[in-house]
Amino acid sequence: MKFSPLLTQLIESLRCLPGVGPKSAQRMAFHLLERNRQGATDLADSLSKAVNEIGHCQQCRTFTEQAVCDICSSPKRQASGLLCVVETPADIVAVEQSGQYSGRYFVLMGHLSPLDGIGPDDIGLDQLESTFAAGGIEEVILATNPTVEGEATAHYIADMAKSFEIRASRIAHGVPVGGELESIDGSTLAHSFAGRRELE
Amino acid sequence: MKFSPLLTQLIESLRCLPGVGPKSAQRMAFHLLERNRQGATDLADSLSKAVNEIGHCQQCRTFTEQAVCDICSSPKRQASGLLCVVETPADIVAVEQSGQYSGRYFVLMGHLSPLDGIGPDDIGLDQLESTFAAGGIEEVILATNPTVEGEATAHYIADMAKSFEIRASRIAHGVPVGGELESIDGSTLAHSFAGRRELE
Repeated sequence: MKFSPLLTQLIESLRCLPGVGPKSAQRMAFHLLERNRQGATDLADSLSKAVNEIGHCQQCRTFTEQAVCDICSSPKRQASGLLCVVETPADIVAVEQSGQYSGRYFVLMGHLSPLDGIGPDDIGLDQLESTFAAGGIEEVILATNPTVEGEATAHYIADMAKSFEIRASRIAHGVPVGGELESIDGSTLAHSFAGRRELE
Repeated sequence: MKFSPLLTQLIESLRCLPGVGPKSAQRMAFHLLERNRQGATDLADSLSKAVNEIGHCQQCRTFTEQAVCDICSSPKRQASGLLCVVETPADIVAVEQSGQYSGRYFVLMGHLSPLDGIGPDDIGLDQLESTFAAGGIEEVILATNPTVEGEATAHYIADMAKSFEIRASRIAHGVPVGGELESIDGSTLAHSFAGRRELE
């Protein structure tokens, strides 16, 4: 069965979305054409506006259409002296939702991965070094993912921070709150035991 | 956590896709901005082209950007004397994939549903009547869904066909090929017994 050329093109294009295979793409295309043409028009507008206007914040490299994002331009956050390093803009959302952090961020947009040819400059570490050099940072909190690459990236940045006499800390790894001990993997439990704290 | 206005708008717009909730929309937006801006641009183009140019086939009402779709303009299908009535364009795909049918189609784009205010004219039955009146159809195959509304619609169209002395048939309902009897619901099994055929 061949669809009309434009319909085929729409179904193909929808497959660029993560998690959307041929069947879902077909269902989405029919749904939009049958029931929500206005939604499709709005989506087309939002996509082209986003692609054309959203760039990276000059300071923290997160996504924003302004030169400097809202978090970086907040004087309160500037004054905190804290800088949290994360891998992606989505990680900022996760940290912000915890409500426990009120400092600035730096988004690597990836992690060190020499095998894939991703070196320090590709994840903006030259820019991070200038930020360190500019002063005003007391502690850098390394919130990269607990993967091999994330750990390596964290250690690399910790070394950088030391050379500027900035304290570097790594977020704790352990048993998630609400998790059950029996369903936790050994590596996480090992971290959990190594990072134990005395009860007062 | 508030995103920048354009990013918020993009995430909201992505939620018009079926099966996409707030979390998936966020993941899609970040994926497109981080890794596939070209894909996002192509998707925006395809969406606006599709919305502006794809309409309904003048004969069978399926989606096409031409006046008459490929199936309806095929002389071989025209000559078959068969017309298959389905509820949605996606149903045409399903029937075509079976490879067993080589006639024309008529797409209702819905089914009769008096409670929702959907009457015969809303699903194009006036147009179907003109098709019947134009002649050239020997049999109409009713392939609406086996729901209450689909059955009612099938019976309504069968009555219409009779008044033009056109044979009307309903696709068989029964145990799906490869299905296991113990996992089939009673109503399907009842259809399956009622529609049994003698072995030759």
